[in-house]
Amino acid sequence: MRISELSAVSGVPLPTVKYYLREGLLPAGERTARNQADYGRAHVARLRLIRALTEVGGLSVADTREVLAAADDPQMPLDHVMGAAHDAVTNRAKPTRTEPEWSAARDIVLLLAEQRGWRVEPDAPAIDQAADAVAAVLAMDVPELHPLIDVYAEHAEELARREVAAVLSMGAPEEIVRGVVIGTIVGEALLNALRLMAQQSVSIALLEPGPGGP
Amino acid sequence: MRISELSAVSGVPLPTVKYYLREGLLPAGERTARNQADYGRAHVARLRLIRALTEVGGLSVADTREVLAAADDPQMPLDHVMGAAHDAVTNRAKPTRTEPEWSAARDIVLLLAEQRGWRVEPDAPAIDQAADAVAAVLAMDVPELHPLIDVYAEHAEELARREVAAVLSMGAPEEIVRGVVIGTIVGEALLNALRLMAQQSVSIALLEPGPGGP
Repeated sequence: MRISELSAVSGVPLPTVKYYLREGLLPAGERTARNQADYGRAHVARLRLIRALTEVGGLSVADTREVLAAADDPQMPLDHVMGAAHDAVTNRAKPTRTEPEWSAARDIVLLLAEQRGWRVEPDAPAIDQAADAVAAVLAMDVPELHPLIDVYAEHAEELARREVAAVLSMGAPEEIVRGVVIGTIVGEALLNALRLMAQQSVSIALLEPGPGGP
Repeated sequence: MRISELSAVSGVPLPTVKYYLREGLLPAGERTARNQADYGRAHVARLRLIRALTEVGGLSVADTREVLAAADDPQMPLDHVMGAAHDAVTNRAKPTRTEPEWSAARDIVLLLAEQRGWRVEPDAPAIDQAADAVAAVLAMDVPELHPLIDVYAEHAEELARREVAAVLSMGAPEEIVRGVVIGTIVGEALLNALRLMAQQSVSIALLEPGPGGP
């Protein structure tokens, strides 16, 4: 198909398609005439992936390029591709880490991971992100909430099992990368929204005066 | 203590403390001299809460002010305080909602809630946030990931039960309010980070060639 059709089929505006071509995110089409090239289904799939990365994931063009480069490298093991996607996502958050309690919180996170047998790259940004949250919980003097750290870890593990299994069932590597991105980013938004809905429901039920009191 | 000590004890830089005072997020200290005021433990606790909301939760100063106002109002029923914390969190994401599929996605979310017996205010922002995510999943042509929507709902419900129970065990109403805010916002950051760590671990384990084959 011609570039105008590629734009129509993918729903990506023509100037944006041209921009992705210039930036090298989208591979060039097959040259058919002086000023014409032919694009195929792979280009449509690639455009969808770029959109998932930039629009749903909020990644910059530079981060998108890195994730795509990892996905395109046939020598790159799949878990490194996943790592690139994760890093791109977690790099969006840039909290300050000046507190003295922070490295203690990071140790708690590492211990938690060790106890559950998790194998995580020691420089994974998610570890620092978890340490930020644990440090905040510890600084806040709410001992009643500390047991939740383990509850979250337990649910995170079970969720990850289901998510990774679903993503791997997508088959082709480029599909899997798309799945990782959608699962990581859109999944996060969905999980958080459903959790807020469930919290509202549970607290309404617990707080209302029931037939037996209070 | 003096404002410089308050800064040292809380780890919040002095200019930031002064900024929070000016913005009314932090109540004024007790005036002890012309240019001096005395701050107490309540100020340290409030600074920690502000930091959790802004740094870990990523809330704007305006959203932080709203959550604190709800928390400070003794007339405010607890589920409304929860609502304010929830709204502040969900307001961070401002996705576009122009797609025709969006109201279909919202119906899916409402059906899901109904099937699980959730009681959610029909205008809760979390419903729209969930609809955004469901619409993105549906638009992305990844049928393998659709079953995850139910998986998320299941885990969200169980998590909410544990979270609300932990928060209610905090006893005094103003403690509970603090628990809601910390649980909602810091809990979200922690859950997401642990989920990324677990995803990495599960995918490394699944992708490596094991003793029994690839």
